[in-house]
Amino acid sequence: MTAEPTLALARFVATADSGRLPGAVRHEAKRALVNFLGCAIGASRHDAVTRAIAALSPFAGAEQATILGRAERFDCLHAALLNGMASHTFDFDDTHLKTIIHPSGPVAAALLALAEYLPVTGGEWLHAFVLGVEVECRVGNAVYPSHYDVGWHITGTAGVFGAAAAAGRLLGLSEAQLVWALGTAATQASGLREMFGSMCKPLHPGLAARNGMVAALLARQNFTSAIQGIEGRRGFANVLATARDYGKITAGLGETWELTANSYKPFPCGIVVHPVIDGCLQLRAEEHLTAEAIEGVELSVHPLVLELTGKKTPRVGLEGKFSVFHSAAVALIDGAAGEAQYSDARVADPRVITLRDRVVATVDPALAEDAARIRIRLKDGRIVERFVAHALGSLARPMTDRDLEDKFRALCAPILADEAIEALLGACWRLEQSADAGALPRLSVPARHGATAIA
Amino acid sequence: MTAEPTLALARFVATADSGRLPGAVRHEAKRALVNFLGCAIGASRHDAVTRAIAALSPFAGAEQATILGRAERFDCLHAALLNGMASHTFDFDDTHLKTIIHPSGPVAAALLALAEYLPVTGGEWLHAFVLGVEVECRVGNAVYPSHYDVGWHITGTAGVFGAAAAAGRLLGLSEAQLVWALGTAATQASGLREMFGSMCKPLHPGLAARNGMVAALLARQNFTSAIQGIEGRRGFANVLATARDYGKITAGLGETWELTANSYKPFPCGIVVHPVIDGCLQLRAEEHLTAEAIEGVELSVHPLVLELTGKKTPRVGLEGKFSVFHSAAVALIDGAAGEAQYSDARVADPRVITLRDRVVATVDPALAEDAARIRIRLKDGRIVERFVAHALGSLARPMTDRDLEDKFRALCAPILADEAIEALLGACWRLEQSADAGALPRLSVPARHGATAIA
Repeated sequence: MTAEPTLALARFVATADSGRLPGAVRHEAKRALVNFLGCAIGASRHDAVTRAIAALSPFAGAEQATILGRAERFDCLHAALLNGMASHTFDFDDTHLKTIIHPSGPVAAALLALAEYLPVTGGEWLHAFVLGVEVECRVGNAVYPSHYDVGWHITGTAGVFGAAAAAGRLLGLSEAQLVWALGTAATQASGLREMFGSMCKPLHPGLAARNGMVAALLARQNFTSAIQGIEGRRGFANVLATARDYGKITAGLGETWELTANSYKPFPCGIVVHPVIDGCLQLRAEEHLTAEAIEGVELSVHPLVLELTGKKTPRVGLEGKFSVFHSAAVALIDGAAGEAQYSDARVADPRVITLRDRVVATVDPALAEDAARIRIRLKDGRIVERFVAHALGSLARPMTDRDLEDKFRALCAPILADEAIEALLGACWRLEQSADAGALPRLSVPARHGATAIA
Repeated sequence: MTAEPTLALARFVATADSGRLPGAVRHEAKRALVNFLGCAIGASRHDAVTRAIAALSPFAGAEQATILGRAERFDCLHAALLNGMASHTFDFDDTHLKTIIHPSGPVAAALLALAEYLPVTGGEWLHAFVLGVEVECRVGNAVYPSHYDVGWHITGTAGVFGAAAAAGRLLGLSEAQLVWALGTAATQASGLREMFGSMCKPLHPGLAARNGMVAALLARQNFTSAIQGIEGRRGFANVLATARDYGKITAGLGETWELTANSYKPFPCGIVVHPVIDGCLQLRAEEHLTAEAIEGVELSVHPLVLELTGKKTPRVGLEGKFSVFHSAAVALIDGAAGEAQYSDARVADPRVITLRDRVVATVDPALAEDAARIRIRLKDGRIVERFVAHALGSLARPMTDRDLEDKFRALCAPILADEAIEALLGACWRLEQSADAGALPRLSVPARHGATAIA
């Protein structure tokens, strides 16, 4: 294996043999796809998406590709942008914990659009997806953490490499063309952490998807870039990071798979609250708790919990995500903590507020970040307790396929009819048997009559 | 004037009064437009342009806007990308010498495309162009030189702000929307110097034009960004530069105009060779020199000339641009130093080679960068000499309007018929009297029959 990382990645993507892909990696890719589709479909009516469609649709091309969860169809480039953006809008997408990259968005959004344009089998699609995520995460590994610390939103800046590599694979680029595709990706790498809290944050993976696809399309026509886009003196790693380790790009390439370190959020809020929510949900289910039966809730939490989510009296849905008190209350009342539990209405609900005010939280510096202790005093005098050592969604206790399916169902419920949701889920799990990967996104379009559509 | 640069620029663009624009600035804008159009039309058949069109045309939208010098029409976003790229392909575009930004490309490419989509008068167009260049160059001034030294191609990274501001002005954005447009521009800022020497270099101003337009279009739909896109802790200036001076953005805003510091290249090669070419052309014209009459040519040059353009025996056209010897020879033989003088054929021409081999160059460290001394010995025993104190195109001796017209004619001659060239030139100078700025780019399309078209 050469020590030149750009060339090494190009060679890897050009020559990778899908037969060498371990079954566990293929399965993880389908889990990531399910999670990606749920997030994108669930956010398909969000203001960020509808405003971007209003802004860009006058300039869109032929109806080549599906906007997930919607009736509109746009050209592949705009579809990649919009679907990549939707997938990150709820901050509910997957996380490569080593780099905080949300890996699926840029890669899957580009590949799903291309799959409606080119003939692509499900097996080819899945392989290209794995390769794209591998390139993206390895580029991220090479520059993390200095790159992130400088202020770059790494999902955008590393994502464009993943989208370029994956699209380049589907387009059948040669090694030399993939070098140009990665170079043309490098020179488009962008996305500032300053944008966190605004609509530009989810825009970043959308731009990465579109820009990576553009890089691959240009390279297919022998549009040249520098040949050391990543490691050159004025290339990506030197200009956008203060430290770099190219060994993290080249070591074990084709032998180890970053997708196996991917994680999925069970709840659409900051990961530090997840142990508390997890424990509350467990206790509610096992003890058949009702809000009215609860006298008080005592939480012992990692110090970061109160630092990041210590809001006692949230007023709107978004603030609810930064309140461990609200999160515990809705988990105990609703037996769920999805987007619906973080609506403005739910945060203002008197029953939720009553229970929220009975929640107290104490810091225990001995607790791990993914641990929490929940102690509930009931009005009948009983006390129920739960210690969560590893929250659901952590690498030590990943979401099961069933958990991911339930998350998918909850995200899609406002958009798709039940039978459409199950059909799409089934198509994801059976993707490798499909002769046409482009059929998959079309399953996300709500039927004209039947499905509940939110305007 | 507020000290917050993003807000200051947004307010400036939202409220600027075209009546306050000095006549000299308006005239400079038209000179920049003439130069931009000549460069873009001249390069309209270049491989970089034809490959990008082949790559992207399957995804383009409605035929809203002209590709300069070509018959194809694409949606505004793709037209902005392709025309911005073409304008930089010959490295013959304008230069804001304080920052090495090539200012017209990103701004004019975005605005010309929008002018075919919206009703825009010539006066409104010219004003938006001036404002865009002002924003772009002031952002550049604030981060130059550290930003460039880090490795950013400043024409791309500053250009996206100029395109966003100019497009935002034509779209009638409010101050708050312009803040978002500038933020959405900031988070797309990209373009690495590593790409110099590849087709990605001219791609940068094309991307800046398209991305800036996207930023403005999104902002028009109230798509939000961070409000301190330039000066925020994780914003453009902190992440992409190691030093910054926001006073260079805010001081004198609306009072001084960066366009007045714009310069234009008379010759499509490195600026260090320009004094030699200038002197050779003067001597040839005044002394009616022919190649056969010349015994030898002695040049005294600034040290940078031999460092950057010391190639004794260039083999292809591009290498000719890095040869002061070839440059002097073709200037003396052809009485010109345009793209035609840097073709592969011209570099291999025996008559050019014979004279080139009679050129010697000596470094004189006392010479200024824009100065040179030329001494020619003729076979009849005479000696003719010329000292060039300031080369044509320097700020001390700018190209006249007539010079710019001649450059425009030479660039357009392979693409357009003479009468079409004159009609386009006339339309540029009379732009402020035009009720429809969108008519201007359409004048660049070669007639179906008549004009010489290079396939």
